[in-house]
Amino acid sequence: VREITLDDVEDLALGAVVLGTGGGGEPYVPTLMVREALRTHGPVPVVRPDELDPEGLVLPLGIIGAPTAAAEKLFNGGESRAALRTLEDCLGRKGVAVMPIEVGGGATLLPIAAAAELGLPVVDADSMRRAFPKAELTLLNLAGISASPLVLVDAENNTVVVHGIDTPAVERLARPVVVEMGMIAICAAYALTGAQVNEFAIHGSLTYCIELGRRMRAIREGDADAYPQLLEFTGGRLIFTGKVADIERRTVNAWAVGTLTLEHLQDPDRVLRIDFQNENLIAMEAGVPLVTVPDLISLLDAETGTPMTTEALRYGQRLQVLATPAHERWHQPDGIALAGPRSFGYDLDYVPFGGTR
Amino acid sequence: VREITLDDVEDLALGAVVLGTGGGGEPYVPTLMVREALRTHGPVPVVRPDELDPEGLVLPLGIIGAPTAAAEKLFNGGESRAALRTLEDCLGRKGVAVMPIEVGGGATLLPIAAAAELGLPVVDADSMRRAFPKAELTLLNLAGISASPLVLVDAENNTVVVHGIDTPAVERLARPVVVEMGMIAICAAYALTGAQVNEFAIHGSLTYCIELGRRMRAIREGDADAYPQLLEFTGGRLIFTGKVADIERRTVNAWAVGTLTLEHLQDPDRVLRIDFQNENLIAMEAGVPLVTVPDLISLLDAETGTPMTTEALRYGQRLQVLATPAHERWHQPDGIALAGPRSFGYDLDYVPFGGTR
Repeated sequence: VREITLDDVEDLALGAVVLGTGGGGEPYVPTLMVREALRTHGPVPVVRPDELDPEGLVLPLGIIGAPTAAAEKLFNGGESRAALRTLEDCLGRKGVAVMPIEVGGGATLLPIAAAAELGLPVVDADSMRRAFPKAELTLLNLAGISASPLVLVDAENNTVVVHGIDTPAVERLARPVVVEMGMIAICAAYALTGAQVNEFAIHGSLTYCIELGRRMRAIREGDADAYPQLLEFTGGRLIFTGKVADIERRTVNAWAVGTLTLEHLQDPDRVLRIDFQNENLIAMEAGVPLVTVPDLISLLDAETGTPMTTEALRYGQRLQVLATPAHERWHQPDGIALAGPRSFGYDLDYVPFGGTR
Repeated sequence: VREITLDDVEDLALGAVVLGTGGGGEPYVPTLMVREALRTHGPVPVVRPDELDPEGLVLPLGIIGAPTAAAEKLFNGGESRAALRTLEDCLGRKGVAVMPIEVGGGATLLPIAAAAELGLPVVDADSMRRAFPKAELTLLNLAGISASPLVLVDAENNTVVVHGIDTPAVERLARPVVVEMGMIAICAAYALTGAQVNEFAIHGSLTYCIELGRRMRAIREGDADAYPQLLEFTGGRLIFTGKVADIERRTVNAWAVGTLTLEHLQDPDRVLRIDFQNENLIAMEAGVPLVTVPDLISLLDAETGTPMTTEALRYGQRLQVLATPAHERWHQPDGIALAGPRSFGYDLDYVPFGGTR
C-alpha cells in the first residue's frame, strides 16, 4: 500500500487481531483514534524501508502492558505524540517516519494515528510481524539494535525514559513502571536509522496486515473460498475447532497470564489447552505441543470468522484455532532461542511448523 | 564554611548520621568516595544560597532506596556524575552548583564528591535538614517546586528518567524502578534556580551538619561538656537510655521498615519502641508517642557517643535516644501535613516538640 486511508482501517484492525494471537489489545479504541486522525489530517503516506533516507531517524511506537488493562483504561489521545517527541528530544533530532514496533492488536493502529498527527509517513515494516509480550522479543534486538532509550507515557501524561545497558535491562526496568502506570502505557523505543530499518526490520508488515484483514473480512462476509485463501496466504492451518470450556487468567507484572481450555466440537474427549502471556504461547493436546512460539496461534469465532482477543472470549464460544508460521527469521536458531518456548520458561523445545511457507 | 576539605569529612559524616535518624545509609563507602574525590580534585568551594546566580541551574543530588541495600551494594563511582549530566541534558543547560537533597547519611557526602569531580561548588543548603524516605518530603515540594524530572542511576549504569505530572507521581513511578535497580539508586531531582534555592531551600545545612559533627566528635573524645553543648546546639533532649532488646526489620518497596525495641537501662519495665521507615518515625513509651516525625529521633551509642544507623545496631547495644526539633518550616501546618505521622499511615497527631528551639 502507498497510503493508509479510512478504507483500510477495518482490514488493518482485523489483520492486527489475527497477528495479535490473543493479545495485542482490543483494537476498538485505537480504531476510533486512527479514524479520527485520518479524518482530521487525511491519509497517511506509507513508505517502503528502501525509500527511507538511510540516515533519517525512524520512530518506532507501540503499546506495552496487559491487554486486560487496555480494554478498561482510556487513552487521553496525546500519549503517542508525547512519547515520540520525548524520544526525539532524547536523541536530539527529529524523526522522518513512524514505524509500528509490532503488527498485532491496537499497537498496529496507534503508530498510524501518531504519524497522521505529526505529519509523518508510516513505514511499511515492523520488528516482529506479530505481537509479543516483551520489549526484547524483536528482530531488531536480534540484530543488536538497542531498545534504549525506551519512553513510556501513561494516560495522565507521566513520562518515564529508560536508558538500559542492554535490552533485557530495559525490559526489566520498564516493566514495574508499566505496572505502576496502571498496567498499560504507550511505548516509543528502538529508535533507528532508515538504513537499519531497511536491513533489519520486517518489510511489508502493514501491507501484510491489511491483506490478511481483507481475507478475514471475506470470511466474515461468507465467501466460500475465503478459508482456503486465508490458509494459502498465511501458510497456516486450522488445528482445532472447539468451544471455550474454561479461561483461567490473572494479571502478573502487567501481563495477562493464563490458560484457555477448548473442548472439541465433535469429540468432547479432545481438549486443546492454550497457554498465554498476553499472546498465545503454546497449543497442547493431550500433553503434546502442537504449535509453539514464535509461530502464531490465533483464535477465530467459528460462526462469524471474527478474529478474537483472549479478553473478548466468552464461555461456550465456538472457535477455530488458526496456526501460522512465524516470519522465517524467527526460525533461525537465535530466533528460536530468543522467542521459543524456553524463553518463556517452558521446559519444551520449539515444535517445527509443518506448514509449507 | 567556605570550602570542604579532607579535614571536614569526619565531622560531616558524624553529623550526617545524627541527621539521618537511623536511615540515610551507612556513610562508610560515601566517605571513602568523597575523600578520594577531594584528594584528586582538591577542596570543594561552598557557596551560600544568596551568592548563587539567581538564574543559574542548581543540581540537587541524593540517594534513594533502602539503607540495607546501600550497606551491601557497591557503587561504581560514576553514578553521581551520570545522574547530574542526564539532568543537565534533560533541561538543556549546564548546572552552576550541586546541592545535597538531604543532609543525612551517605546522601550528604555524595554530592560533595560529585561537585569535586565536576569542578562545581556545593551549595550550603538542603531541602529538609534531615533525611526522609520519600521524594516528596522536601520543603521544595512545599514551595511548589517539582521533583520532576527525577533521574535514577544504578551501579550498572542503567539510567531512568521520571517526568511525573506532580511530585507524588514521581515518587510512585520511581519507587518500583529503585526496587528493580537492587533497592538503591543515585538520584538527581528538584532541579531549580539559584533564586529558588535562596528563597525555598534550608540555608546553612552543610555548615550545620559539620558543626553538629564537631560536637559529636567532642562526645566521642570524652569532653565532659560535650553532651550539654550538643543539646544546646540542637535544641534537643535525651529521651531514653536503653539497650537493644529487639529489631524487627523487613525490606518493603525499597524501604527498610520495622521497629526497634529498647529496654531501659535502669528500669527494665520501661520499654521504648521506635518505628522506622528507613528513618526513625515515632518513639513511643507505654503506648504514648514521645516524639514523632518531622522531628528527629537519633540513636547514639551510650558508651562511645557514636551516632548509629539502624543497620549498624547490634543486640544488647546500649543507646542514648536523642530527640531534636525539625527545622521550623516543618512545624507549619502544611509541613506537618506533608511529613507528620499521618502521612506515614499512623492514626496519630504530631506531638509538638517541647524544646526551646
